Amino acid sequence: MSAKINEDLIRERKNCTFDVQELIHIIDGGEENTMQRKQVENFVLNQKELWDDVPEEYLSHKERYENAIKKASFILNWFREFNRNNIENSDLRAPSKIYSIQEGIFRNINPLLIHIGLFWTPLKNQASAEQQAEWLKPDSKMIGTYAQTELGHGSYLKGIETTATFDPQTDEFILNSPQITSYKWWPGGLGKTANSCLVMAQLYINGTCHGLHLFLVQIRDYETHEPLPGIAVGEIGPKMGFNTADNGFLGFDNYRIPRTNLLMRNVQVLRDGTYVKPKHSKLTYESMVLTRVTLITDLGFQLSRAATIAVRYSAVRHQSQIKSNEPECQILDFVTQQHKLFISIASSHALRVIGLWMWNTHKKVTADIQKGNMDELPELHALACCLKAICSRDAVCLVEQCRLSCGGNGYLMSSNLPQIYANTTAAIIYEGEYTVLLLQTARYLIKSWKSATEHKALPPNVAYLADFIERRYGQWQNSPEGIIRGFKAVAAGKTKTAYDTLQRYLKNGREREEAWNLTSVQLIIASEAYARSLLCDVFWRETKQLSTTVSRNLATVLEQLAELYLVYWALEKHGDLLLYSTISRDDIDALQERYEELLALIRPNAVGLVDAFDIRDEVLCSTLGAYDGRVYERLMEEASKSPLNTEVVNESFHKYMRPVLMKNKL
Amino acid sequence: MSAKINEDLIRERKNCTFDVQELIHIIDGGEENTMQRKQVENFVLNQKELWDDVPEEYLSHKERYENAIKKASFILNWFREFNRNNIENSDLRAPSKIYSIQEGIFRNINPLLIHIGLFWTPLKNQASAEQQAEWLKPDSKMIGTYAQTELGHGSYLKGIETTATFDPQTDEFILNSPQITSYKWWPGGLGKTANSCLVMAQLYINGTCHGLHLFLVQIRDYETHEPLPGIAVGEIGPKMGFNTADNGFLGFDNYRIPRTNLLMRNVQVLRDGTYVKPKHSKLTYESMVLTRVTLITDLGFQLSRAATIAVRYSAVRHQSQIKSNEPECQILDFVTQQHKLFISIASSHALRVIGLWMWNTHKKVTADIQKGNMDELPELHALACCLKAICSRDAVCLVEQCRLSCGGNGYLMSSNLPQIYANTTAAIIYEGEYTVLLLQTARYLIKSWKSATEHKALPPNVAYLADFIERRYGQWQNSPEGIIRGFKAVAAGKTKTAYDTLQRYLKNGREREEAWNLTSVQLIIASEAYARSLLCDVFWRETKQLSTTVSRNLATVLEQLAELYLVYWALEKHGDLLLYSTISRDDIDALQERYEELLALIRPNAVGLVDAFDIRDEVLCSTLGAYDGRVYERLMEEASKSPLNTEVVNESFHKYMRPVLMKNKL
Repeated sequence: MSAKINEDLIRERKNCTFDVQELIHIIDGGEENTMQRKQVENFVLNQKELWDDVPEEYLSHKERYENAIKKASFILNWFREFNRNNIENSDLRAPSKIYSIQEGIFRNINPLLIHIGLFWTPLKNQASAEQQAEWLKPDSKMIGTYAQTELGHGSYLKGIETTATFDPQTDEFILNSPQITSYKWWPGGLGKTANSCLVMAQLYINGTCHGLHLFLVQIRDYETHEPLPGIAVGEIGPKMGFNTADNGFLGFDNYRIPRTNLLMRNVQVLRDGTYVKPKHSKLTYESMVLTRVTLITDLGFQLSRAATIAVRYSAVRHQSQIKSNEPECQILDFVTQQHKLFISIASSHALRVIGLWMWNTHKKVTADIQKGNMDELPELHALACCLKAICSRDAVCLVEQCRLSCGGNGYLMSSNLPQIYANTTAAIIYEGEYTVLLLQTARYLIKSWKSATEHKALPPNVAYLADFIERRYGQWQNSPEGIIRGFKAVAAGKTKTAYDTLQRYLKNGREREEAWNLTSVQLIIASEAYARSLLCDVFWRETKQLSTTVSRNLATVLEQLAELYLVYWALEKHGDLLLYSTISRDDIDALQERYEELLALIRPNAVGLVDAFDIRDEVLCSTLGAYDGRVYERLMEEASKSPLNTEVVNESFHKYMRPVLMKNKL
Repeated sequence: MSAKINEDLIRERKNCTFDVQELIHIIDGGEENTMQRKQVENFVLNQKELWDDVPEEYLSHKERYENAIKKASFILNWFREFNRNNIENSDLRAPSKIYSIQEGIFRNINPLLIHIGLFWTPLKNQASAEQQAEWLKPDSKMIGTYAQTELGHGSYLKGIETTATFDPQTDEFILNSPQITSYKWWPGGLGKTANSCLVMAQLYINGTCHGLHLFLVQIRDYETHEPLPGIAVGEIGPKMGFNTADNGFLGFDNYRIPRTNLLMRNVQVLRDGTYVKPKHSKLTYESMVLTRVTLITDLGFQLSRAATIAVRYSAVRHQSQIKSNEPECQILDFVTQQHKLFISIASSHALRVIGLWMWNTHKKVTADIQKGNMDELPELHALACCLKAICSRDAVCLVEQCRLSCGGNGYLMSSNLPQIYANTTAAIIYEGEYTVLLLQTARYLIKSWKSATEHKALPPNVAYLADFIERRYGQWQNSPEGIIRGFKAVAAGKTKTAYDTLQRYLKNGREREEAWNLTSVQLIIASEAYARSLLCDVFWRETKQLSTTVSRNLATVLEQLAELYLVYWALEKHGDLLLYSTISRDDIDALQERYEELLALIRPNAVGLVDAFDIRDEVLCSTLGAYDGRVYERLMEEASKSPLNTEVVNESFHKYMRPVLMKNKL
């Protein structure tokens, strides 16, 4: 690449008021992590097999898959060599950008992601010691995936139809897909790649259903890779994103597996068909919680990619004039553009901070669980549900806002913004659908509200409910702390309103479930308000704490971002604040003014702030966002790679168009 | 296709309270239009060449283009034969669904769309009679496109860099692209398809720049289709959607065209280089206005496609229980699902209604212009700007909401929802970027506010500003008319706030342009509020009027939809209503209750309402939304078309994966 840097970017970087390197280390979680990340990046960058000549957008669906498997095999091999012990190390899932270079290798996704990330964890958590000794052998030929959802069932696990019926004669389970809706549907890597599968199925013994259980099932021959008899498997077709993941379907026709393929750490089926119950049914959702927690950090990273692209492009692009006697200005100087972008920078930090906070909370709670204390699990679950929901929604909306802020060029695949959007938006659905998750949190909130009205002790994160009841919020204050108190009042007020509506329906003779459904729009609103108050509270608190440990200039900038986040959301939700706090119109006007001040304060550091995300060009994969700002040159270079441009005239002209034109009619 | 209809859909249709056929005719704009549409549909459906065996999502970028050209050539030929006169008929652009079958033929877009829709109109409007006689000959070999935007310039026309310099020696213009940012960039069909082009360039005569003018330029040989010397042309690469449109780039290197290729109806350059000015500089934006108006109707249609898919799928899909002792329910029975979907049905009607209203307004204003009265043009322009902006935003957000309401399966290309989103979201940018357009309307609003404070007469659509100043809004009422008055008060209040902020900056010594930029976030808010009040007002007024002409049951349903739209937005914007009207918290609670009542009232007609959009399966192109509701069967059938599924083992296993697995390490 050329060493020449765009003049605007040089000037922006010169004007930056803080030490970018210092912030890089903070975002990486420490200087050591930065170094480790760079080491991985440098290694991977030198592997020529991993980088494409022709961008994958030009390939057919099948070619894309094959190209991805080529890279995935290389990565798998490398992962085993370079990093052999990490696969055993659960901290692989800790918030980290160390392997973010993968985003550059797979513009879509690594088809072995589920194999690496979601296959081994349940095996280790739910298989017995004996089973683990057998299955986790170093010469394992398994390429695995995790098959839970079915054509007819996603979020509602109870409804899953696949059956595993114990046959005492042969000491086997017989797997069946009773009807078309029972086919497994969606697991990543299932279609063509995996030869083994963790299958969630209803366990039947002697005509009695014992509910959902997890089975290890081989589906393809290890040598020939052909599907085994009784197995129907294939891919489900192209998607909005993740097109190299070969998401698949899987049907069973009297397919037999040994009894010992039921994962038996927490539950057992004995040789004679005796069913031994698990001790704690709640334990199974602990791993779902973990996945949701790590997702928040990932979403923050994706948002930082989008923000980097959009901010750098906005610094390079000149369009229109602010003053008619001056040259065209950087579009980053338009306040409307700052309004679109700076909240994305701030939110990316918010997601990173809340992700880390949730990771630590999760660690603490699981440590307690191992000591036998399960008390905090419901609160953890409620937190993870609403935060996963609202963080995914925020990230997706802001990624799209970044894309739209780049005008037409944000619509080009070469900007990489469409792919970031397509891959991010999936997070609103997978690992728990938005609405379903918020309703789960709502159950917790309604319960907590009832406890609060009965003056029972409340867990710390919902203590604000009691404050609301006791009218401890007092007068509105236009300050970060005041806004946080306001959001807590809103969260409590919305919970109260939903609770009252629920009670009204019950009083009018509706059954509990019906009343719940009728109140659900308000319940969602209450959960959203709760999540927002949490985000504001944690982000501000953690930022204040961090500020005491960093250099002064950086502290100022970080607090500006956190304050921007609070003020932005106060303005967005001013209607709710008017309803549940004593905020006045003058307060709102003052907040609007402060918001515009903050935009102006952040403006000189905008490029520095995205530089501090330290996402190298090979990970950004964007014509618009590269470090050197050679936007227009890159756009032309990328266009020149199109196979349509390597020929002067496409054959379709002679074949189809010319005959029509030569008919000599208008 | 099977004649068997899903049982749930049969029941839903039985329960529908209104005559679906009656509404179909209304949406088509009359029974005759319905018949004409069906005639076109039936003709096209019988043309085997137009329908794919392998869905285009499986093809490579190049194959997709070739496939689209095959179909486009057929369509072009048919258009000429079947419909020869229509191309001359400007009512082709009138709101209509007659040619909506094209959406089914091109899952992406017809690469000749610009040729058909946007090439001939400027030729007819801006070429002189003589030029038209020459260029609009029936044996024309031109395949045209319209080249305005450049790599460095989109929304800011003044900045366009392409030059056309008059050479008096040869009586020619010399076209040049002075630098990389001057390359034409984005025109649809420019990359490989078009051989001619309307080019927007800065006109230079004798060293004097006369600003932007339109030139007809041949870019490829009519026979060989090879680019002519001095022309650099190619496609700009893959995009989020519209991937068969071969959007292109175009550079000129001293490329010469005859002087008479300047479009000379309104402006002239004489043989000696004399420049004859146009009479009305405003006339040129009349055609932009028209495009924006027709876009609103198109967006309504796209939203109705998404709503049809999501509502039918929600009626067919059963998931989870409302009451624990009953079977799993249709997800359409969840109030949260109704909350996501019914606003899309209502908004689709709102867009159709406002589109038609704008079309009629436009017709009236252009008739006046032809009589020499240009007074209403600024208002028309202001209306078209903010309505195009807000209607595109609404449609896009709701299309995405429909997609997300289908859970994971809405992420499948076979649902067609990702494509509808990708194609719709482009409308936020093309034909005028969202923010830029709203700021244009804001200029009009600020001017009008000033007039209002000076008690000058106001055009009817901004008369509410005077009402606000004179405090004529009075007490809040929870009724459709009350909500509309409330929105007008909000629109006026937001305009006032922006105006006051602007004045404050000016008073503090900022220059006018700078003050404008600093106020721009508030100006956008004011324009949005204005557009929303218009939408609410026109939708309700037109619905009330329509109600008097239709059968009673249908009138009831249409009014429910319009009321839902008003109440939905009143709740969304309750913060603004609290600031600028006398609405109370009790009023808001009552609106929330009414909103939930309306959801329940609309529920039994939901399937009937989307049936009334009358979008046949071949136009919906969706596994989830087909009329017969065979959702799960179709999902499996579509998956079976994947080239990855036609082979048992993909070669990448043996080539890449097996060697890694056989290394015998975990």
